[in-house]
Amino acid sequence: MSKTHSNPLGPRFRDADGSVEAQTRARPGVVDCFLFERLGAALAGARLRLQLWNGVILGSEDRESPLVRIRDSGALRRLVLYPELEFGELYSCGRVEVDGDLVMLLEEIYRHAARGWRSALQRLGRVFWSAPDMDRARQNIHHHYDIGNDFYQLWLDPDALQYTCAYYARPEMSLVQAQTAKMHHVCRKVWLQPGESVIEAGCGWGGLALFMARNYGVRVRAYNISHEQIVYARDWARREGLADRVEFIEDDYRNATGRCDAFVSVGMLEHVGPGNYRTLGKVIDRCLEPHGRGLIHSIGRDRDAPLNPWIRKRIFPGAYPPTLREMTEILEPNGLSTLDVENLRLHYAQTLRDWLGNFNSAETGVRRMFDEEFVRAWRLYLAGSVAGFTTGTLQLFQLVFARAGGNRIPRTREAVYSDEQTGPVWHG
Amino acid sequence: MSKTHSNPLGPRFRDADGSVEAQTRARPGVVDCFLFERLGAALAGARLRLQLWNGVILGSEDRESPLVRIRDSGALRRLVLYPELEFGELYSCGRVEVDGDLVMLLEEIYRHAARGWRSALQRLGRVFWSAPDMDRARQNIHHHYDIGNDFYQLWLDPDALQYTCAYYARPEMSLVQAQTAKMHHVCRKVWLQPGESVIEAGCGWGGLALFMARNYGVRVRAYNISHEQIVYARDWARREGLADRVEFIEDDYRNATGRCDAFVSVGMLEHVGPGNYRTLGKVIDRCLEPHGRGLIHSIGRDRDAPLNPWIRKRIFPGAYPPTLREMTEILEPNGLSTLDVENLRLHYAQTLRDWLGNFNSAETGVRRMFDEEFVRAWRLYLAGSVAGFTTGTLQLFQLVFARAGGNRIPRTREAVYSDEQTGPVWHG
Repeated sequence: MSKTHSNPLGPRFRDADGSVEAQTRARPGVVDCFLFERLGAALAGARLRLQLWNGVILGSEDRESPLVRIRDSGALRRLVLYPELEFGELYSCGRVEVDGDLVMLLEEIYRHAARGWRSALQRLGRVFWSAPDMDRARQNIHHHYDIGNDFYQLWLDPDALQYTCAYYARPEMSLVQAQTAKMHHVCRKVWLQPGESVIEAGCGWGGLALFMARNYGVRVRAYNISHEQIVYARDWARREGLADRVEFIEDDYRNATGRCDAFVSVGMLEHVGPGNYRTLGKVIDRCLEPHGRGLIHSIGRDRDAPLNPWIRKRIFPGAYPPTLREMTEILEPNGLSTLDVENLRLHYAQTLRDWLGNFNSAETGVRRMFDEEFVRAWRLYLAGSVAGFTTGTLQLFQLVFARAGGNRIPRTREAVYSDEQTGPVWHG
Repeated sequence: MSKTHSNPLGPRFRDADGSVEAQTRARPGVVDCFLFERLGAALAGARLRLQLWNGVILGSEDRESPLVRIRDSGALRRLVLYPELEFGELYSCGRVEVDGDLVMLLEEIYRHAARGWRSALQRLGRVFWSAPDMDRARQNIHHHYDIGNDFYQLWLDPDALQYTCAYYARPEMSLVQAQTAKMHHVCRKVWLQPGESVIEAGCGWGGLALFMARNYGVRVRAYNISHEQIVYARDWARREGLADRVEFIEDDYRNATGRCDAFVSVGMLEHVGPGNYRTLGKVIDRCLEPHGRGLIHSIGRDRDAPLNPWIRKRIFPGAYPPTLREMTEILEPNGLSTLDVENLRLHYAQTLRDWLGNFNSAETGVRRMFDEEFVRAWRLYLAGSVAGFTTGTLQLFQLVFARAGGNRIPRTREAVYSDEQTGPVWHG
């Protein structure tokens, strides 16, 4: 069956060579057994089992625990050498398979192997990480976001196409409800008032920009370098009759012009890179009115470390989740003051669980567009992200700021939590 | 009239020498006029006026604006040389006087002179700043907090003797109400549950520790190195019948032992010094149960800079208000994760306004204890602090944290803002 989309994850995964089929029947050698033992030791205490191609099993005595099946000698060697990268590569092409709950398996690996597997390469990665220039930024964003609006529509919330952390104000909320709650949460945190102007940096398919205009009566100028997303967003604005109040601009956030009462960026900072944080701060300083407020929503870390190398290679080239300390580099040199930080990591775990459920339900549809490797890779990415947020290797920071010394800020955060849309009581 | 307390602000202020009286009648010389012009230029645009001892006035044309009267040539020279230190010294001993609203004057100076007066010495100060060892820490704390419980009782809230930022949940709240609201705010943010144990680092006169035990049913071990405060706190606990549930320990936070469900520190970090943040983090890591939460409440800054040198010399030796970036040094290396940050700087401005009002009302009582210099110095400290928080040169951060990956955290912050004491809905 021919696919309507080519596999967008980059050069073909290093797949089984001719000898693999033979190897899966071959008996493991001495080196294989030594490496298998080492792998087991690195994961000691984790509730999971490892199995070689000849059926030998190591690990937890719990026979209900997830089972990782390593299908050939080459796969075993690559897994021991660089597990953070190769697990994803090998799982995607089927040379490593998982029986049982994939999320639970990854949570166990993150919790127990985090220290044992942490490679010096990860530290080095940070040193050699460089801020993407505008061309590189465009390539990176194209890689992930331009693989097809129809693909994302299969598993994101249909109402607002939010590809960022939702806010489950109540535990029983659906994904659609939680994405709506997230957008209200963002708008209330920056205290949007009717008639105000907003600059949004990194606007996805435009769902939040349109929501702000529709529900809070603001004008929005929204930037994005993903061509497919901007085309979609403009069409959506026209269909909603909001094209006169929401302008979608296909350009880099660094080229943002004009002034705004609120600067909002939800899910872009991960792609900005620490080398550009001061520049982002300068852009905000240039655009924000004296009384202005801003919000940055980003995946983050407790400690600085690059993103998982497989995720960077296959899913998000150039992505980097900052620590809170690194995020202050946006604000400190540019006379901006932190008013509020909220960590929503377990809301992102729930969001990703909902996405993964939708993705699994839509698998037939996805297979019509992409090949099996893509389906497996994407499932691993979603499941691994759930595990990252539940185990706390990933955080989700919403940071609210204003100009230093600007006193038109609300007295308390209470209005954010009030269903009556009374608005905040201001200090001065 | 003999004073019951000696002036506790350190060596006597460099006072008027014999020649001052003569100088106040002498005509300003060429150098005086040059320096006076320079001072005026540094404060250009500020709504204030400067006056020399011969009556000449520079500055705002608004005759209602505050007037700074410089009474002699030596005072003028010292003011130009090192205004951040000398304004306080000269005001305290009456060689600089202020007609009009002292807070308004200081706000104008902070807003307009912040850049012009910023001295290279301030930057250098940060470099040479060193963490106080335990002996130095004891001397520093003794200097400020052991000057007499009866003195602080004249102007703090009588109910809980809170010498930290209050929380004005509603604008019309009194100081007493706002201090009660602050204590609830802190307890709710760390989700205290009946029967839990709390370690409090830096407990003042014990008001918060007793409040937590009384209202939230927890056991508290509270540390303080101020002897006078600990003696007072123990007596207070006995009077309230809470001595079996609240233990006041006269010791450094670094010697804290045992485990706790919540670690709380309100208004101590300012005295810890950045060189000790990692140690504080280690203490927390040693004491906090796996599911534990913590809160640090501290005066802070948008950018790193030492405290005003006069405040450090006369009021708070060794004090340093950290940036949010610097505060992350407590958490990052010790496996702790930021959950929530709230900036309450304008609540501190209001708290200080209320304290200043009480202080002015109690001036007769203060004069019975201390000399005129002390009264003037303390008034300047309170007024200057109001100005610091309103102009945004000072911040007030409340930071909530938990262990990285600890998932027993509430889903949202909504319960903090609910008057029904229902408690939070937990994630897991």
